[in-house]
Amino acid sequence: MGNGEKNFNVQGNERLIGSSDTMIRGVLDLLKGNVERSMQKSMIVLGHGDPTSFPGFRTTQDAEEAVLEALKSAQYNCYAPPAGLPSARRAVAEYLSRDVPYELSSTDVHITSGCSHAIEIILKVLARPGVNILLPKPGFPYYEAIAEFNQIEVRHYDLISERGWEINLDQVEALADDNTAAIVVINPGNPSGSVYSYQHLERVAVIAKLLGIPIIADEVYDHLTFGSNPFVRMGVFASLAPVFTLGSISKRWLAPGWRVGWLAICDPAGNFQGNTIDNCIKGCLNIVSGPATFIQGAIPQILENTRKEFFSDINAKLKECAEIAYDKIKEIPLLTCPLKPEGSMFLMVRLNLDLFEDVTDDLDFCLKLAREESLLVLPGFVVGMKNWIRITFAAGLSTLEDGIGRMKSFCMRHSLAAAR
Amino acid sequence: MGNGEKNFNVQGNERLIGSSDTMIRGVLDLLKGNVERSMQKSMIVLGHGDPTSFPGFRTTQDAEEAVLEALKSAQYNCYAPPAGLPSARRAVAEYLSRDVPYELSSTDVHITSGCSHAIEIILKVLARPGVNILLPKPGFPYYEAIAEFNQIEVRHYDLISERGWEINLDQVEALADDNTAAIVVINPGNPSGSVYSYQHLERVAVIAKLLGIPIIADEVYDHLTFGSNPFVRMGVFASLAPVFTLGSISKRWLAPGWRVGWLAICDPAGNFQGNTIDNCIKGCLNIVSGPATFIQGAIPQILENTRKEFFSDINAKLKECAEIAYDKIKEIPLLTCPLKPEGSMFLMVRLNLDLFEDVTDDLDFCLKLAREESLLVLPGFVVGMKNWIRITFAAGLSTLEDGIGRMKSFCMRHSLAAAR
Repeated sequence: MGNGEKNFNVQGNERLIGSSDTMIRGVLDLLKGNVERSMQKSMIVLGHGDPTSFPGFRTTQDAEEAVLEALKSAQYNCYAPPAGLPSARRAVAEYLSRDVPYELSSTDVHITSGCSHAIEIILKVLARPGVNILLPKPGFPYYEAIAEFNQIEVRHYDLISERGWEINLDQVEALADDNTAAIVVINPGNPSGSVYSYQHLERVAVIAKLLGIPIIADEVYDHLTFGSNPFVRMGVFASLAPVFTLGSISKRWLAPGWRVGWLAICDPAGNFQGNTIDNCIKGCLNIVSGPATFIQGAIPQILENTRKEFFSDINAKLKECAEIAYDKIKEIPLLTCPLKPEGSMFLMVRLNLDLFEDVTDDLDFCLKLAREESLLVLPGFVVGMKNWIRITFAAGLSTLEDGIGRMKSFCMRHSLAAAR
Repeated sequence: MGNGEKNFNVQGNERLIGSSDTMIRGVLDLLKGNVERSMQKSMIVLGHGDPTSFPGFRTTQDAEEAVLEALKSAQYNCYAPPAGLPSARRAVAEYLSRDVPYELSSTDVHITSGCSHAIEIILKVLARPGVNILLPKPGFPYYEAIAEFNQIEVRHYDLISERGWEINLDQVEALADDNTAAIVVINPGNPSGSVYSYQHLERVAVIAKLLGIPIIADEVYDHLTFGSNPFVRMGVFASLAPVFTLGSISKRWLAPGWRVGWLAICDPAGNFQGNTIDNCIKGCLNIVSGPATFIQGAIPQILENTRKEFFSDINAKLKECAEIAYDKIKEIPLLTCPLKPEGSMFLMVRLNLDLFEDVTDDLDFCLKLAREESLLVLPGFVVGMKNWIRITFAAGLSTLEDGIGRMKSFCMRHSLAAAR
């Protein structure tokens, strides 16, 4: 220096650091770093909701063809409108309308870069000084990270493991106040694997109406159900309380890397009329980047023309995986899985820590499991449940069996009983 | 009501409304609404930087093939890492390194959903209480909108039309202070059509070094030059002042709808070492949505294997368009175009309002032009230049000639001379 010029002492926005550390990807990277490189065993990742690397979980050819055709047409190399291509918005409106007792219009639908982008947008829209949001525990930590960045206060309500991970409605009522901007309901459940009944969802809507708060319905795992409860959209009850429906083609079509999702306003009773929500969403879409135009151009084909067999095949595969995972975990006395999954791609497992010799908590469990068995599962603290783990059962069958087998060996090796 | 439940009085974040109104798309929509539906004339839009709807401006088959192959491989249906696929990051690092006297590494590069997404990310990263940013006037209003949303104070420096739209460096020095987070330099120029010389860019870097502020180099129109100055990357001078290089395949490859761009840190002198910028970018990428994985998978092919003839053809076409537009506008005495464009897709034209009979300002000009001639050009106030207009010359030749012809008829009809 010395010649008058200044230092480049520019710093970044510290609100961007920290929250990301406890997010799923950060923790999986930490675990990955703990895997012994010299290990003979190949690494098995049962840590995130993306089975697309397994041969049985390739997206449908119909969808691939639709995207190929859209690209080859050269009609979609242009920018798309901020809310998405009109044809894609119409197709999503029709797709959602199949499951609710009213018709959504294309202007109710906004196309986003996957469901996480829809989360980012709706929380940005609801962020005002002093507001809070009700989030499920266990939940999806992306909500916490986005809420924190937008300075929205987070209030957690419990999902009750003994009652099929249903929402603790009394607690919801106690937590909400005049500054509550919304309640988030994730169904089918990530990480719980639960699928809520019509009656339970109706009760949620009744409470939301009583409290005067809209519902953010995260239905990214829509229709991925294989238990006794069929999938019911929260939007069915939108005449009671307005619903923001979030979804994408990521899970049902096994195409998370295509980055197409949606944010739909379900408000048949017109509760939002005269407020600023719609204008704020429009304003927000002007300053964010949407998905590739040609993939949007393929959305009508994808949503309308995918063969039913593709969906039933995938659900049958998921059911088989869920059963194998559940049954094999039941054989391990050190673990407890309170619900056989009925939807989504996950199950939650409680660690019975008093039966372990030398495992102190969920992170310790996952770090040791990674090191000794090259197996990655998510420590529960990341999703709000200390001393639980979240396991993805959506995987190739042999990989899944191998993975749970490794977990069993690990548990046996570390059990107090074995030590005695 | 009456039975105890509350109203849904949820409001949106008002910071999302307003700024968007003056953005390019909003104003073009306003103008579009002014076009007479009964008009015989087809609508001509010379309002935005997207020529992909014109037959001469289709992206190269090499790029299309690369994306098709990536999709068909089914290797890229998965989520990508937050900073982008390693292969794409490496390819962009190599692409940028061709133009600078040092080697960028793949970890210097972050893949974004187009250049606008890179703008969104870098401004979010730099947003801290009290900071300001130096933006060019005329400029690209997306910066103002994102800065405003992130509560960054905007300070405008002038581009000097009489000096080929060079940066007013004295003014930059006067505007900057200890809270200045960065200066944005757009080269090739949108909306000016200028291409800065090596010497001018070097002077910018020297000033930035003196002031201790990093440079955000918006090079979305990189290599789209056809005048006397070759394209020089700001990053050439990054050893003087660190440079954030923003770019994309949107313009040079004519694929804005593919939504792939990048944010690269060029800091060969290590000025950012020990600060939080890099961690903040990483944290930010964790909470935003990147581009489709399979398009990222095609990036190495696209950046490395596109034939030179494609680029030279496009530049020759742009040069021809720029010359026709410039020459034809020169024939209209009511308009002044101070610079024949040497790059990008735009030119700036001053309205000599005292020669018009009944045109009050730039918006009035554009509204009447839309109504009477079905021709859409951007009023200058949107880019910071009241009583100027921004015209896109990147269009089909016959469309462009037709468009400027209509503008000439309009001007003649509304000239004071004609009225007398």
